[in-house]
Amino acid sequence: MSKSAFVGAALFAFPCLASEAVLIQQVYDQATAYFAPLPTPQELLRENDYSADMVDLGRHLFFDTRMSEAEDISCASCHDLTLGGTDGRPTSMGRDDRFGARNAPTVLNAALNIDQFWDARAPNLFEQVKGHVLNPIDMAHTQASLFQTLQGIPGYVLRFNSAFPNDAQPLSLNNFATTVAAFETTLITPSRFDDFVAGDTSALTLDEIFGMQVFFDLGCAECHNGVNLGGNSQNYFGIVAEPSNTHRPKDDTGVSAVTGNIHDEYLFRVPSLRNIAITGPYFHSGSADTLAEAVQVMAKVQLGSEINANDLEFLLAFLNTLTGEIPDVMIPNRFSRSPQDPPISQDPSTLTQNLLLPRAPAGRNPFVGIILDDQSQ
Amino acid sequence: MSKSAFVGAALFAFPCLASEAVLIQQVYDQATAYFAPLPTPQELLRENDYSADMVDLGRHLFFDTRMSEAEDISCASCHDLTLGGTDGRPTSMGRDDRFGARNAPTVLNAALNIDQFWDARAPNLFEQVKGHVLNPIDMAHTQASLFQTLQGIPGYVLRFNSAFPNDAQPLSLNNFATTVAAFETTLITPSRFDDFVAGDTSALTLDEIFGMQVFFDLGCAECHNGVNLGGNSQNYFGIVAEPSNTHRPKDDTGVSAVTGNIHDEYLFRVPSLRNIAITGPYFHSGSADTLAEAVQVMAKVQLGSEINANDLEFLLAFLNTLTGEIPDVMIPNRFSRSPQDPPISQDPSTLTQNLLLPRAPAGRNPFVGIILDDQSQ
Repeated sequence: MSKSAFVGAALFAFPCLASEAVLIQQVYDQATAYFAPLPTPQELLRENDYSADMVDLGRHLFFDTRMSEAEDISCASCHDLTLGGTDGRPTSMGRDDRFGARNAPTVLNAALNIDQFWDARAPNLFEQVKGHVLNPIDMAHTQASLFQTLQGIPGYVLRFNSAFPNDAQPLSLNNFATTVAAFETTLITPSRFDDFVAGDTSALTLDEIFGMQVFFDLGCAECHNGVNLGGNSQNYFGIVAEPSNTHRPKDDTGVSAVTGNIHDEYLFRVPSLRNIAITGPYFHSGSADTLAEAVQVMAKVQLGSEINANDLEFLLAFLNTLTGEIPDVMIPNRFSRSPQDPPISQDPSTLTQNLLLPRAPAGRNPFVGIILDDQSQ
Repeated sequence: MSKSAFVGAALFAFPCLASEAVLIQQVYDQATAYFAPLPTPQELLRENDYSADMVDLGRHLFFDTRMSEAEDISCASCHDLTLGGTDGRPTSMGRDDRFGARNAPTVLNAALNIDQFWDARAPNLFEQVKGHVLNPIDMAHTQASLFQTLQGIPGYVLRFNSAFPNDAQPLSLNNFATTVAAFETTLITPSRFDDFVAGDTSALTLDEIFGMQVFFDLGCAECHNGVNLGGNSQNYFGIVAEPSNTHRPKDDTGVSAVTGNIHDEYLFRVPSLRNIAITGPYFHSGSADTLAEAVQVMAKVQLGSEINANDLEFLLAFLNTLTGEIPDVMIPNRFSRSPQDPPISQDPSTLTQNLLLPRAPAGRNPFVGIILDDQSQ
């Protein structure tokens, strides 16, 4: 079935039902080859040996500005859960309201990416958290100042003890990063797209399904595939044509700045497309205001294509189906610094209540090393 | 019992238990004369005829940046519930990252204030919400653009219909303000201080109780009294001595700019002291970084006193007891703009589940008028 025949069916609701069924089946078959539905947070937590205590402690830390040395930003400042897990800014505002060089990637579903930061310099959320908390232009703590901060807040001392009952020293940078990563691992956002990939082809409209066909036809799925439609590879920004200096500023060479390898110039992590409709502006430079602009630039410089207006509309309809629902996250109470204050009652997040996870086995700490860089994302 | 004898008792734990009991009783008697424990959110909602549907809709709107015309700020941007209901900045950042002229007052317990904004230009939260959403340097909507925004988001159309089932036109500025005010009315933060005022004198330590005595002795309670320790009167900033131009900038004359009355020059709303320890920086100018500085300036320019180091320590210990616990607030899912997306399942906030409130009676709308001004707070 040709694309234009299908456009007819979708646009004018021409009753060619048999052909529709064939096309839906074709797109579905490709979808199952390229994509996968999201796992549940529970599956991911078990897989990583994260306990409910870790998740709930990480929830408190994620929202606490005292986890930055100047006490002005928290993880949530750049990864706002009401804004698709990002901040809506071209580049993020760090310490003293100074802007960093890159657009904040979403924290939603980030646990499923094979690496973190635009230049892929962290292999997982654990290292990403440490990278941010120690980055001098960002949260700017040292291991010592972070330890001192945590120790000065009785509620945290109590919670670290509960979350790491077998550790000689529960208050540590590694345990801090483990709990924040554990919390972030729960931020999984299923959508109708997942229902479709899991077999319910009625979950998407014909327009959206045709948009997925456009996505495959253009070649987008060569990079944006897997459970996160991206987040599982690196590629050059500008494969077929050179992007403008606005979209690809000359002085940010991506992975090559980390590896020192000239062959990595303008190599970047391929971002996930989940929640892409609500996580603009776009690119590592935050230089594309709209998803339509971002898609057209991508088609041109990565795939050598122009997208016509009809296809663009379908493609955007498809991308919109990747906007999912965030899990229930209760805004945490801020633990008091006063030694007079009894630690606040363990306000149960629905999340952790529902998880009923076993505690992590003793002595587990699979992560090592610290990543530090002057890039903020 | 003299103050210095008590200092001895508190500092050195000298066992003069009979005298302690007398002092505690004295302070408690004054506390019940000057203060009152917080009501529950449930009591306030019933009193105002706010329904659970209104509260939950208000929760969504409070966190939604699309409620500003530039889609860059929400109510939560300046009234961050993880930061004591304020933003931690000297003055707030509004549209296009421009700073306003005043420090953001906390939204916590604000429902109990008799007026709103530093210049008291709004009589209640309903008018405060309208003032912000229509303020051109702030959220910058018009009634028409707000209506258009809400109508373009199917989840909101559904929720306004549920919350105002008897209205011919549920989508309106007044109903918008009603729901946000309803949500904000739930943000009541009881602390150990309330237990003390309600009769449990063991809820505070001796140091904290002596700090309350210092508070009474200095005369702070002449303005900071009632259920909110303030929020129920206006007074001049600089009664006894003139504050510095930093603390009281010449060009912000407070209430007089609203009334045009020269006798109102430098008249301001007396702010609540609840959560004061976590809502710095201080004053309408946001010019005092620490609570210690703010307290010393207040003592000098309002009461003509210097506070000695011991008394200051006790006073700060007392003020710290006013930091309360925020209620359970679930971070809302962002309603999609796509007509293809079924409105997100009514994610129940624990809050509204627990309230089990009757719906508001038909046709209720006790509020009229719109406040507009070029001040942002």
